Amino acid sequence: MFKQKTVLMIPGPTPVPESALIELAKHPLPHRSKEFSEIFVKCNEDLKYIAKTEHAIPLIFCASGTGAMEAALVNVLNPGDKVLAVVNGVFGKRWADMAKKFGGEVIKIEPQIGKAVKAEQVEDAIKANPDAKILLTTFSETSTGIRNPIDKIAKLTKHTDIIFCVDAISGLSAMPVHMDEWGIDVLVAGSQKGFMIPPGLSFIWASKKAVEASKQCKNPRYYWDWDLAIKALESDTTAFTPNVSFICALAETLKLMKEEGIENSWKRHDLLKRLTRRSVEAMGLKLLTSEEDASASITAIIPPDNIQVKDIRASLKDNWKIIVADGQKEFQGKIFRMGHLGFVFERDILMALSCLAQSLESLGFHVKSDWQKAYSDVLKNK
Amino acid sequence: MFKQKTVLMIPGPTPVPESALIELAKHPLPHRSKEFSEIFVKCNEDLKYIAKTEHAIPLIFCASGTGAMEAALVNVLNPGDKVLAVVNGVFGKRWADMAKKFGGEVIKIEPQIGKAVKAEQVEDAIKANPDAKILLTTFSETSTGIRNPIDKIAKLTKHTDIIFCVDAISGLSAMPVHMDEWGIDVLVAGSQKGFMIPPGLSFIWASKKAVEASKQCKNPRYYWDWDLAIKALESDTTAFTPNVSFICALAETLKLMKEEGIENSWKRHDLLKRLTRRSVEAMGLKLLTSEEDASASITAIIPPDNIQVKDIRASLKDNWKIIVADGQKEFQGKIFRMGHLGFVFERDILMALSCLAQSLESLGFHVKSDWQKAYSDVLKNK
Repeated sequence: MFKQKTVLMIPGPTPVPESALIELAKHPLPHRSKEFSEIFVKCNEDLKYIAKTEHAIPLIFCASGTGAMEAALVNVLNPGDKVLAVVNGVFGKRWADMAKKFGGEVIKIEPQIGKAVKAEQVEDAIKANPDAKILLTTFSETSTGIRNPIDKIAKLTKHTDIIFCVDAISGLSAMPVHMDEWGIDVLVAGSQKGFMIPPGLSFIWASKKAVEASKQCKNPRYYWDWDLAIKALESDTTAFTPNVSFICALAETLKLMKEEGIENSWKRHDLLKRLTRRSVEAMGLKLLTSEEDASASITAIIPPDNIQVKDIRASLKDNWKIIVADGQKEFQGKIFRMGHLGFVFERDILMALSCLAQSLESLGFHVKSDWQKAYSDVLKNK
Repeated sequence: MFKQKTVLMIPGPTPVPESALIELAKHPLPHRSKEFSEIFVKCNEDLKYIAKTEHAIPLIFCASGTGAMEAALVNVLNPGDKVLAVVNGVFGKRWADMAKKFGGEVIKIEPQIGKAVKAEQVEDAIKANPDAKILLTTFSETSTGIRNPIDKIAKLTKHTDIIFCVDAISGLSAMPVHMDEWGIDVLVAGSQKGFMIPPGLSFIWASKKAVEASKQCKNPRYYWDWDLAIKALESDTTAFTPNVSFICALAETLKLMKEEGIENSWKRHDLLKRLTRRSVEAMGLKLLTSEEDASASITAIIPPDNIQVKDIRASLKDNWKIIVADGQKEFQGKIFRMGHLGFVFERDILMALSCLAQSLESLGFHVKSDWQKAYSDVLKNK
């Protein structure tokens, strides 16, 4: 089977629509041209729509997601600041480590393995640390497929001085985010997830409260400096050379996202999640997380006894050209992860599940045929 | 005339070969796949060839050039360190400003306006500041078209503890760089210049001396951390999600660069520089820099009396779809800059000069017809 037939069902890069790939193939525009500025300004407007904000300022960085995570921290974190960090996976840990590197006194809030944090745990941590300045939370923890309840957490910080920072890299557009209404202060996202373009851009939305905090922030910064970025926005441009090709592709996928409507995108991803979860369970497999705790971007699946994750992944890759992800760190070999984020629809899930069933059978696991009924039941009642 | 016929003769983005654009249009590979790792490893090998180094470690950052300039500084600069910075334009000033932001005690070496720095000036500065830890120099100062003599400067630092950092963003591949032989410690470059792909990647080559210095460096860092990047190289990968699409396009342009041969690339750019300079002078225009001080990437041209830079640029753009750059900061409106970097050949220069001659005539300037003979004389004696 041709290499070109490969389907990525990993948590990113996600599938890229043809019209965005075609944008990438066009010759780059001069970055200081009027033509490019118009595209850039449109992207910023559309980014506000995606995050449901009117008041926050969207900033586009030429960097991958970790870059924007750093750009969030170094603008609001003063060395010595107390930082509360929800850690329930690789990416939560990365942000906590990073905060420590930049001088934060980091206090981790660590839910039970495989579980979302409870708002009460965060509330307790805030009460125990009334001098906390920053709260870091991962929205969709890609490493385990967990969704943390950022809506409930935001209520705890909204009327305080705490800067609530959300890494929504793999969650935005898949699940509801109401930045203004909830009171998120710093939202972070990346291009290769719900935005449906390859990795290369990342985004920050900074609330007024966050921008005010950044003005007092002493952490040295230049490439990530919000102040330089915001000043450049006044001239409809970026502080430093932008990735013009990716921004043109982003303009295209934002157009597609607006055509679908963000609420419909949330609904679609919720459906994809339920289709995946119910079918996989009906096959006779177990899931890592409860439905309530599960992200709509990715599903973490526990392999059947006596079948190795690496064999499932190899079978899906070699026979069906479908790429799914292994677990990370302590979950390596314990789970496999199937992404259903971005340019993914019901048909893709049915295809991937059908191939998974074939692969599992070929590895000696008896797949219960009930799964197809489970799939269609979810679809009927969507 | 179709928009698609536009030719960029700006200092970046530079023209992109079709085969690289086609790479960008391909669906992204999973970044942790064997297939991508092989391409990534090949790029790193080829990057060593381009910088004429066997001992330095090349690092690819998902960021534009300013990001790599920051990644150079924060790995070798300790707060309080004395930094000597050659400043003869916008980009030299940017690096000096950045060093100050990150805690450096910056001492500027400022040549006369429009002139390259002299090695003697740098030598004097080193003698006057025996405690200097870092020396920053721009190789090709894009804002003015100046080439600084990094070969001679390197001799001054090679056998000292000073870390010699060169911003070669717009100069690499256009003019000789022998990183190992000369003794450059940190070399910086960007994708949208001699590498012939759009802006989105930047590069650092770190010498052993620089890597040793980075191990002692206390400046906090994460996204730019060489240590994390070098550790990831051991597994043929990157510390954070790379721009897979751009790295695949880079693999393609590096292949083209190796086919030409880096020495031939230097010769070609030197020819393009002489073709441009001699022809423009023969037209009756003046150049900002002397031939000795001039970069082979870009030529800064002084407009005729009574003709505005903005009118020349508008005429070239509106009538001929050729984009040239204005001057920056104090040179805005005083010079226009014609890039001849990367995927540019003799025919492109002849075309651009012919259009320039037509534009100047239409603006009321009598172009001396001698310029065509000047052009062919250079070409004959190349």
